Amino acid sequence: MVAKLTLRTHARDEVHDLTAELREVVAASGIRQGLCLVYCPHTTAAVVVNEGYDPAVTRDVTDVLNRLIPWQASYRHAEGNTAAHLKAIFCGASQTLAIVDGRLVVGAWQAVQFYEFDGPRQREVQVTLVETTA
Amino acid sequence: MVAKLTLRTHARDEVHDLTAELREVVAASGIRQGLCLVYCPHTTAAVVVNEGYDPAVTRDVTDVLNRLIPWQASYRHAEGNTAAHLKAIFCGASQTLAIVDGRLVVGAWQAVQFYEFDGPRQREVQVTLVETTA
Amino acid sequence: MVAKLTLRTHARDEVHDLTAELREVVAASGIRQGLCLVYCPHTTAAVVVNEGYDPAVTRDVTDVLNRLIPWQASYRHAEGNTAAHLKAIFCGASQTLAIVDGRLVVGAWQAVQFYEFDGPRQREVQVTLVETTA
Repeated sequence: MVAKLTLRTHARDEVHDLTAELREVVAASGIRQGLCLVYCPHTTAAVVVNEGYDPAVTRDVTDVLNRLIPWQASYRHAEGNTAAHLKAIFCGASQTLAIVDGRLVVGAWQAVQFYEFDGPRQREVQVTLVETTA
Repeated sequence: MVAKLTLRTHARDEVHDLTAELREVVAASGIRQGLCLVYCPHTTAAVVVNEGYDPAVTRDVTDVLNRLIPWQASYRHAEGNTAAHLKAIFCGASQTLAIVDGRLVVGAWQAVQFYEFDGPRQREVQVTLVETTA
Repeated sequence: MVAKLTLRTHARDEVHDLTAELREVVAASGIRQGLCLVYCPHTTAAVVVNEGYDPAVTRDVTDVLNRLIPWQASYRHAEGNTAAHLKAIFCGASQTLAIVDGRLVVGAWQAVQFYEFDGPRQREVQVTLVETTA
């Protein structure tokens, strides 16, 4: 089963929590056991699984990424968004999660998050569910 | 098929090799062909696939992570473990491996490792096996 | 279905685009819906999904990685390639992609890339396709 989530970002750096929408996709699929691939088809954004409770964490993550990979530096890429590509690689183009007993498995403090690194933009996230026979 | 590995960490930074336990889970499942998701449900630890032979490598990895993301800095998150969240994001919440001919596919020098970044704690790792029909 | 891609790298840092070969593997499999795991069995190389159009991006990525994780430093690992292990961990040992309607799902500007961090070497990439029943 395949689903597409769409979102609009409003700043260069921004984090969206996808967890609730993903839970709905899994529930609607009727799949009891399997995997859920949450995939970012963009090259300057990422999908992350981490702390979803205290928003101070995502602001800290953004700050540290900007310190390690500054927006302005002697980059070759003419578009000027090399830093966003680097952050996307470090954070990951996708996350894979389990579906067990019909529910998405996410830790108590975890959220599945979309990290925008080159907004504002219109973005999408591709969700692919795979059912297992075992 | 779903399995849970549990472990107890004893220091802030610690690495546990999960490879042998994962091989047992795969063998016990009887699955011949498919995928194995090794998932960390915590936000201050990670699952990594890398060198499992020389323990100096994991110590180097720990040192470099601590240099790039120091424990003490002007972080917003009140719990004081922002660095652990960052390291978890950089290293990854999960790893996906192949099952081929009933065996977990891991490179000759590779191990599947649990990286603790905010121990000591009681931790768990969720393993999900998916069998393919093709 | 399982396939193996082989490649020869010629420099310490090098990037190979695997996308066309992967599309062929998926087409040849006949799988209509599922997942494709692109796995690096080596500990000093990685598989990345990012910008595949402007080669300046991969050169920038290489430069930033070398700035953050210098080849020479006070590392413990006697082989002298600690930096390559670190880069492999940060970039990821594998990438998982979707197969939808018989085609590999890759974003418009994305490529699936093999990053060599300790070449020149003979390398391989293991591809595992999983078909879903849902």
